Amino acid sequence: MKGLWLENQQLHLRTDIPTPSPPSGEVCVRVLRAGICNTDLELLRGYYPYKGVLGHEFVGLVENGPEHLINKRVVGEINASCGYCRFCRTGQPTHCENRTVLGIVNRHGAFADYLTLPVTNLHPIPDSITTDAATFTEPVAAALEIQEQLSITPNERVLVVGDGKLGQLVAQTLALTGCELLVIGRHREKLALLEARGIKTGLSEAVSDRAFDIAVECTGNPEGFSLARRALRPRGTLVLKSTYAGNLTLDASSLVVDEITVMGSRCGPFPKAIELLAAGKIDVEGLIDGRYPLSEGKEAFEAAQRKGVLKILLEMS
Amino acid sequence: MKGLWLENQQLHLRTDIPTPSPPSGEVCVRVLRAGICNTDLELLRGYYPYKGVLGHEFVGLVENGPEHLINKRVVGEINASCGYCRFCRTGQPTHCENRTVLGIVNRHGAFADYLTLPVTNLHPIPDSITTDAATFTEPVAAALEIQEQLSITPNERVLVVGDGKLGQLVAQTLALTGCELLVIGRHREKLALLEARGIKTGLSEAVSDRAFDIAVECTGNPEGFSLARRALRPRGTLVLKSTYAGNLTLDASSLVVDEITVMGSRCGPFPKAIELLAAGKIDVEGLIDGRYPLSEGKEAFEAAQRKGVLKILLEMS
Repeated sequence: MKGLWLENQQLHLRTDIPTPSPPSGEVCVRVLRAGICNTDLELLRGYYPYKGVLGHEFVGLVENGPEHLINKRVVGEINASCGYCRFCRTGQPTHCENRTVLGIVNRHGAFADYLTLPVTNLHPIPDSITTDAATFTEPVAAALEIQEQLSITPNERVLVVGDGKLGQLVAQTLALTGCELLVIGRHREKLALLEARGIKTGLSEAVSDRAFDIAVECTGNPEGFSLARRALRPRGTLVLKSTYAGNLTLDASSLVVDEITVMGSRCGPFPKAIELLAAGKIDVEGLIDGRYPLSEGKEAFEAAQRKGVLKILLEMS
Repeated sequence: MKGLWLENQQLHLRTDIPTPSPPSGEVCVRVLRAGICNTDLELLRGYYPYKGVLGHEFVGLVENGPEHLINKRVVGEINASCGYCRFCRTGQPTHCENRTVLGIVNRHGAFADYLTLPVTNLHPIPDSITTDAATFTEPVAAALEIQEQLSITPNERVLVVGDGKLGQLVAQTLALTGCELLVIGRHREKLALLEARGIKTGLSEAVSDRAFDIAVECTGNPEGFSLARRALRPRGTLVLKSTYAGNLTLDASSLVVDEITVMGSRCGPFPKAIELLAAGKIDVEGLIDGRYPLSEGKEAFEAAQRKGVLKILLEMS
């Protein structure tokens, strides 16, 4: 089968990848569509030494498998967990000690004709969600993880730093809480997408110091962190939602003096994401900036790396 | 009056400091005893550009003031707050936007014959607490702040990194929660103090990776942070209890992947600290490694900076 293969920070379009045969408990999924995420770009830059098929945001079709899934469009949780470690046993399978992660850790990913995942990872997609929109299930779930970790009420003043793919979804999901929300970005046309949904936006100059209860860092760069930090009131919470290639240098004493909480946030609840997409409460189709067949995967990555570009989709035949 | 004066990272014993006259709402306190804290040493190294009398851990005598305090030994909360800013109005006076801080920010400190503080900052010390022990009220309160921020039960596995002044008090207060506790240090004789109280201790090799729910960093150095970080399980909490001179460099992506929370922690509840000291539940006198008259303040600081030394007290005449 065809697939986009990452090795030594080089991406290769290969046509000689063996079609996977699912081990016991897993299902083979024919990939219909997949999305390029910033984590894929970070992996390409070497943030983590992964070798294999890239990709973890996808919609696919189950051709063979359990009856309730057969011929159904599905999305899949990306962490394949062992089921018996201390994290699995305490309801935290996304932190399984023995996990593989689709297209990220020891498991071939979604930028290929086929992938396999444990049947328990799969969620059928209702007819009311288009295949394009369903491709966003994983990042919408990741955005919703913030609300699993923190209670956010209309009283909270929340800042989102970053108007990219992740910032857009984080902002849209946070807006549903009714919190007092401001999104900061550098791209007027991306901010306009949010403004069109009634979300207040601005450039970094619009951020008052020490004015926010919660700041969500969605840029993955040190300037974004620094802006989020200075925007927080004492005892505020800084949510780290992006992975960073390289280290971050910060003023730890100021975290102590202001009793700031910095909280890492990763994968989130798929069922809630599917529910929001089915109810049309999140606009994801407006974020699509291009589509490429899998055979033009390298061009798709070039497009995804261009400044100002939001989501690039790969379409499998 | 005499006082230890910090200016341009130099400490001077001055005898020409005007005795302070308390403004309205404040009381003049004759200092009996004071303790040298790591923050004092950090200020001397330039962590914050403070100029004036140093010192914030003290016991004093109220010679003139409200009847319930007169001739009483008192300790004092170090943040003098405005009472009307948004933090004061929401019950967070230690984060007052307009605060001065005894011996740290815009307010002369305790290493002098007299100091002034708002009367509302003062807490009388019951006869059952010795003057030596009462000098530890402020750092015991700071240690207790962790329990104000986090609920710690006997189920929690908690690591304290650092066997110095702060680590000792953090460990002793945490031990009272019944949590599963391990303290890591570099000094066998300091660890022995904790062992004598039934607290488990070890050298850094004793720490298993990803084994703790909570890690409290009490060293103020990057190696301590790094040890605390690697000891945490996914979704664990790293409490920053020390101020750092300089920046800290960390792997932010790993905080995201493991959904780690890093939480700054500063001043804590004086009434609870006094209660524990009165009940004899904390041993502080064992931490005293030397006493100096105020006139030998510079020698006291030299002693406090020596490796392996715990608390140095200054005795006013």
